[in-house]
Amino acid sequence: MNEYAPPLGRLIEELKRIPGVGGKSAQRMAFHLLAGNQDDADRLAEAIRDLKKNLFHCSVCNNITQADPCAYCTDPNRSDEILCVVEEPFHIAAIEKSGVYHGRYHVLLGALAPLKGIGPENLRLDKIERRLKTGRFKEIIIATNPTSEGEATSHFLVKTLQAYNTRFTRLAMGLPVGSDIDFADQVTVRKAVEGRTELTD
Amino acid sequence: MNEYAPPLGRLIEELKRIPGVGGKSAQRMAFHLLAGNQDDADRLAEAIRDLKKNLFHCSVCNNITQADPCAYCTDPNRSDEILCVVEEPFHIAAIEKSGVYHGRYHVLLGALAPLKGIGPENLRLDKIERRLKTGRFKEIIIATNPTSEGEATSHFLVKTLQAYNTRFTRLAMGLPVGSDIDFADQVTVRKAVEGRTELTD
Repeated sequence: MNEYAPPLGRLIEELKRIPGVGGKSAQRMAFHLLAGNQDDADRLAEAIRDLKKNLFHCSVCNNITQADPCAYCTDPNRSDEILCVVEEPFHIAAIEKSGVYHGRYHVLLGALAPLKGIGPENLRLDKIERRLKTGRFKEIIIATNPTSEGEATSHFLVKTLQAYNTRFTRLAMGLPVGSDIDFADQVTVRKAVEGRTELTD
Repeated sequence: MNEYAPPLGRLIEELKRIPGVGGKSAQRMAFHLLAGNQDDADRLAEAIRDLKKNLFHCSVCNNITQADPCAYCTDPNRSDEILCVVEEPFHIAAIEKSGVYHGRYHVLLGALAPLKGIGPENLRLDKIERRLKTGRFKEIIIATNPTSEGEATSHFLVKTLQAYNTRFTRLAMGLPVGSDIDFADQVTVRKAVEGRTELTD
């Protein structure tokens, strides 16, 4: 039986379909909106409705954008000699926040995941191949996730794209800054030992 | 006023002095012991009482040991040409579990922490200097934590010990294996970009 009046119950059910929103959170959000004023609710509803209308994938790099090509592809202050390949559009933000990368991006929109049925044929590489053919990239940073799927994707990319004679690099794996060695899993500690860097005074 | 009979209250107070044990946990542990049999309680009490009696620091590396020198210092199958310097004895276990390190260890028993009043004079380096003088180490891996204190300690060690003409390396900082780039803090992503490694097919 429904515990809520239908309009409330319907919103709670819709909110619960968002990953990471459980029953309790959905309920709290719904009651918050119910207690607020109609204008706020209208603005949120409009923002949700218009989200997909005004955004699409960049025709160059697959980033989510409102203008095509996206801001990263058209920025004249970014280097055309280095390309950073990520799995998803939100990974661009993570790398931008680090403040050390000033090249171009390419979004794969996924990673190889045989268990989920995502094989090499699903990762459409024609776009990136076209960029490598016509561009002048000297280094490709493969910034797929440090997971088995990201690693498999990295190997596949190097194998497929090696004909373009660029240098391929991978984001360092190791201890997260500010953490304690004791809290790191053994595979991370292994990567940290294997990837140890030279220290000079 | 005391909510508990004095023997129970006293145990709860003693347990609460252990870092990470709050009032609720202490209470739960105390009531668990109270409900159990006397033999179990005696064995735990004995183990606690004898802990410090039977363990001391290795005279060579400062590890916690029951035999001096400790097992890592005497193991003939470990290399005498590489030394891994850690902050605390339990960091040895973290590195051992990674399975890739087969040299010797040295435990600093702390790190530089000016805010806590731990300066260079508190990090007694005479033991490690003696080892470098008499040993034949070719590489010192500085495996202090990837924190500001661990970093400061690393710089200090390289500066102080550079006269011994060995190679100094540092555990890699970067993305923890199995994680998502999106969850990494910006300093870690910066280290991962800066420390990126070459990929070959």
